[in-house]
Amino acid sequence: MHIYRTHSCGALRAANVGETVRLSGWIHRKRDHGGVLFVDLRDHYGMTQIVADADSPALPVLDGLRAESVVTIDGVVKARAGATVNAQLPTGEIEVFARGVTVQSAAQELPMPVAGEADYPEDIRLRYRFLDLRRERLHANIVLRSQVIASIRQRMIGQGFTEFQTPILTASSPEGARDYLVPSRVHPGKFYALPQAPQMFKQLIMVAGFDRYFQIAPCFRDEDARADRSPGEFYQLDFEMSFVTQDDVFAAIEPVLHGVFEEFANGRQVSAAPFPRIPYRESMLKYGSDKPDLRNPIVISDVSEHFRGSGFGLFARIVEGGGVVRAIPAPNTAGHSRKFFDDMNDWARAEGHAGLGYITQKGGEPGGPIAKNHGEEATRKLIAELGLGPDDGIFFAAGKEGQAAKLAGAARTRLGEQLDLIDRNRFEFCWIVDFPMYEYDEDAKKIDFSHNPFSMPQGELEALETKDPLDILAYQYDIVCNGVELSSGAIRNHRPEIMYKAFEIAGYSKQDVDTNFAGMINAFKYGAPPHGGSAPGIDRIVMLLADEPNIREVILFPMNQKAEDLMMGAPSTVTAKQLRELHIRTVDGPGTKDAAPKG
Amino acid sequence: MHIYRTHSCGALRAANVGETVRLSGWIHRKRDHGGVLFVDLRDHYGMTQIVADADSPALPVLDGLRAESVVTIDGVVKARAGATVNAQLPTGEIEVFARGVTVQSAAQELPMPVAGEADYPEDIRLRYRFLDLRRERLHANIVLRSQVIASIRQRMIGQGFTEFQTPILTASSPEGARDYLVPSRVHPGKFYALPQAPQMFKQLIMVAGFDRYFQIAPCFRDEDARADRSPGEFYQLDFEMSFVTQDDVFAAIEPVLHGVFEEFANGRQVSAAPFPRIPYRESMLKYGSDKPDLRNPIVISDVSEHFRGSGFGLFARIVEGGGVVRAIPAPNTAGHSRKFFDDMNDWARAEGHAGLGYITQKGGEPGGPIAKNHGEEATRKLIAELGLGPDDGIFFAAGKEGQAAKLAGAARTRLGEQLDLIDRNRFEFCWIVDFPMYEYDEDAKKIDFSHNPFSMPQGELEALETKDPLDILAYQYDIVCNGVELSSGAIRNHRPEIMYKAFEIAGYSKQDVDTNFAGMINAFKYGAPPHGGSAPGIDRIVMLLADEPNIREVILFPMNQKAEDLMMGAPSTVTAKQLRELHIRTVDGPGTKDAAPKG
Repeated sequence: MHIYRTHSCGALRAANVGETVRLSGWIHRKRDHGGVLFVDLRDHYGMTQIVADADSPALPVLDGLRAESVVTIDGVVKARAGATVNAQLPTGEIEVFARGVTVQSAAQELPMPVAGEADYPEDIRLRYRFLDLRRERLHANIVLRSQVIASIRQRMIGQGFTEFQTPILTASSPEGARDYLVPSRVHPGKFYALPQAPQMFKQLIMVAGFDRYFQIAPCFRDEDARADRSPGEFYQLDFEMSFVTQDDVFAAIEPVLHGVFEEFANGRQVSAAPFPRIPYRESMLKYGSDKPDLRNPIVISDVSEHFRGSGFGLFARIVEGGGVVRAIPAPNTAGHSRKFFDDMNDWARAEGHAGLGYITQKGGEPGGPIAKNHGEEATRKLIAELGLGPDDGIFFAAGKEGQAAKLAGAARTRLGEQLDLIDRNRFEFCWIVDFPMYEYDEDAKKIDFSHNPFSMPQGELEALETKDPLDILAYQYDIVCNGVELSSGAIRNHRPEIMYKAFEIAGYSKQDVDTNFAGMINAFKYGAPPHGGSAPGIDRIVMLLADEPNIREVILFPMNQKAEDLMMGAPSTVTAKQLRELHIRTVDGPGTKDAAPKG
Repeated sequence: MHIYRTHSCGALRAANVGETVRLSGWIHRKRDHGGVLFVDLRDHYGMTQIVADADSPALPVLDGLRAESVVTIDGVVKARAGATVNAQLPTGEIEVFARGVTVQSAAQELPMPVAGEADYPEDIRLRYRFLDLRRERLHANIVLRSQVIASIRQRMIGQGFTEFQTPILTASSPEGARDYLVPSRVHPGKFYALPQAPQMFKQLIMVAGFDRYFQIAPCFRDEDARADRSPGEFYQLDFEMSFVTQDDVFAAIEPVLHGVFEEFANGRQVSAAPFPRIPYRESMLKYGSDKPDLRNPIVISDVSEHFRGSGFGLFARIVEGGGVVRAIPAPNTAGHSRKFFDDMNDWARAEGHAGLGYITQKGGEPGGPIAKNHGEEATRKLIAELGLGPDDGIFFAAGKEGQAAKLAGAARTRLGEQLDLIDRNRFEFCWIVDFPMYEYDEDAKKIDFSHNPFSMPQGELEALETKDPLDILAYQYDIVCNGVELSSGAIRNHRPEIMYKAFEIAGYSKQDVDTNFAGMINAFKYGAPPHGGSAPGIDRIVMLLADEPNIREVILFPMNQKAEDLMMGAPSTVTAKQLRELHIRTVDGPGTKDAAPKG
């Protein structure tokens, strides 16, 4: 017989009754029922009830152990009596009568409980992550994460992609977020950087003649934490393809995303591929956002023309001054009080906007000050144009286009929540496409890139040479699910002459490009294929599937919001010898006397 | 029709003859046959011959392009005439007559050729890695690497393992190799370290109640390069299991290693599982090494007793002085000259040893000075005892046991090569087991750990309390293939009381253990399962399968031996702002004036 176990703690069934077995695991819970001890023995695979009665030599040993001690139990499988069968537990038809016990590891008093899912302060949970991870929900999240990643890998391979590892010690890049740096021992005064993303590597992989690359890629950004972003490292499904159009990229990745979400949806509905493609400008109009939550049925409309010359002078003046008015329907709000509408307005003001006007409706009767000023006939016409029902209200966001769109989008989200319009049992994907290549930078009073300067402009060189820069669109796209941006992506600009021209429009010289992007531009001069890709965030995918709003609940050993690993004690001070070998010294730090460097 | 391709360059067959097709790829080679241009068009998937004759509008365009330019060809598939069929090429039955061509990317003059496998200086190859990777052998190596890793992953999952990602930004460890450090921006004066291996994390994963963890894990050691070790980062198949014995670990991983080697052996033979288990002491005797190449049929014997009191005074004195004599058979060397034997002796001296004695044999007649001094009868008796054939010679390594074993092992390896005894078409695996827990450190004049202080001693606490430390074995093992150590591994010591005792024997106090290994020892106090694992090196596995002696031939973007990425320009100088944000300054570096820190 194996010295630790004949079965896992999740294996025994009614068919095993009568067998002599050996189980090993953690003491999850103990219950003393008048001299008979019941122990829930837990391992990675499940839980089994152990019984030790007064005759069992295991009784005094188990009695003396704390929860979370590790034991090996020798015993016999018995059927549970009818009433004590636990249908919730896969092993609930049986229990194991303990004949003997071996203590593998006696637990000290615990700093936090494992049994039960009681909330506990995060710093304790992170410091004792090895205990926290024993809890059911976190254990399940981490296993889910592994299964999701394994499924993504198999699906990518099934789509003809090949996984490659790109370097983690690489060069600092002149743009993007802040790099983590690694001092070089061999080259004094020089530093490696951890990659913010393998962007340049994956493009070079295409230039190197591979095709359909992917990687579950660790990425590093030295930025402060947010709920959906861990400080330090995160993972993305990085992929890139050669000789493709934007539609090819979508067609390659949609089955992967749809498939993996469907596999782990657990009854939730997943948008069928092809996912909707929504042009950026349309998304900003209809959803007030470039990451719309399509579970929210509210669709925003532009009603500027409707208010031109209207009796409602405020909106009329805004429209005449070049601004816009956006209408956000509020379905079935006939029963909502005036306070509901006013509260929305107060919320908008608190968010820094001028306010949200509104029209109420009850059984087809419009109400509220705007309706009055605008006039009943005009109001009814507006309601008809918007296709609203007799109990649907309307909120209005008015102002400069960008601001009005933003407010309308925020109001749409808030209404969706307050009116409970979001179907939590759906995963709604969409692509946002046709991002503008350039935007006007009001501060710098110049044209600059909207998003990624390395995306291919639609219309290529001809568009750059002939069109108003602000009208040029890029082959740049985002993939969005339930209002969460999983990734941006693009068809890349692989032609040096188009890249020089694109940068020239944004005010950069050929020299600037050659200096700052030497690696990429040089590589493109030796035969580069057209290529494109994207990089959906793994952590965000798992957060969606696990329905966890906090990224630390889907990472095995996360850092806290101050970028500390409390369990490992990182970051920490190091020895003077280590610093000497790396040709650096610390400054500003506690206990150091050096002035800040002037250079 | 797709704007870039209807088929890949590896797709077209005789069945496609007559079809109008579009192909995209790199111009691999061009040959001008009197006004008709033949172009080998290459992509990730293969190569297709393009023909442009004088009537084709593609001719002048293709004629004007350099090799490695990227083009899209429109054409018609034609069957090649009998004599021009290329049976070596999957597309060799057809060629594509070009009707049109679109230039996607014109190549400049190349710094190194792609077509052909001409040797080229490594610094050029690394600087233009994106060109080097287009070459057939390297392209194939990198694809092989990806396939090997994908296969390992599937096999590990098939064995019930789950892949988890452990942190890359973690804490500096007080032992082991040199760490790469990462200065913290948020915590002045503190540093993260990149993990040398996820050793502590994988043990904590077991303590956290998971089971059968694995990871294709990036590891980082700031050590100088060797042929089989890249500076910087490398990958290992890191795995760990709970509630297991050493045999369980072997049984879990052997099918994975056997399976993956068999899958990519390409006709080479792979040892069947279970792999031989060879105790450390036996391996040191029979092969003079703890990483024996079992393809070499030579087995070393101890013949010390045979020479005790022998007429060959040198060996007799060594044996009487406590040394040993080891015999290394040299099979079928009857035809080898005296010079062959003397050269072996010279080689041993050049390697710093006292020399290699020898006995020759020809048709059963012994020869050489040792035979003469030892006496014919005794020599024949020795030959019989060793079970040698009539034409097998013998070399002798004599001296202190450790030195003699090492020399015998080196001689065995050299004889294997010189006598061409190594069967290159085999992968011979073995486990080396029963490593001693302790050894006597001659310099420090004290007992110290032989290998890993965290391995479980065989016999556990009782052995530590009752046995001579030098007789205690550990549950510590190496997996070796063809003389290459793929990994060490162990059943871990998960009991604090045994750990304190094990360290006490090596001269460390409880305080020392608590200070230096706080994280691990604390975790073990809250219920730890018995556990063990190993971590075979991925790069070495791929080197064996690709038959490449240089690790840089199996890594996509390797650093050079000076730990530089010549393509990306890493490491590099960074801005003063970056250093200021990280609270460090550089010293000793070129152009800095600071003295080395005293601290």
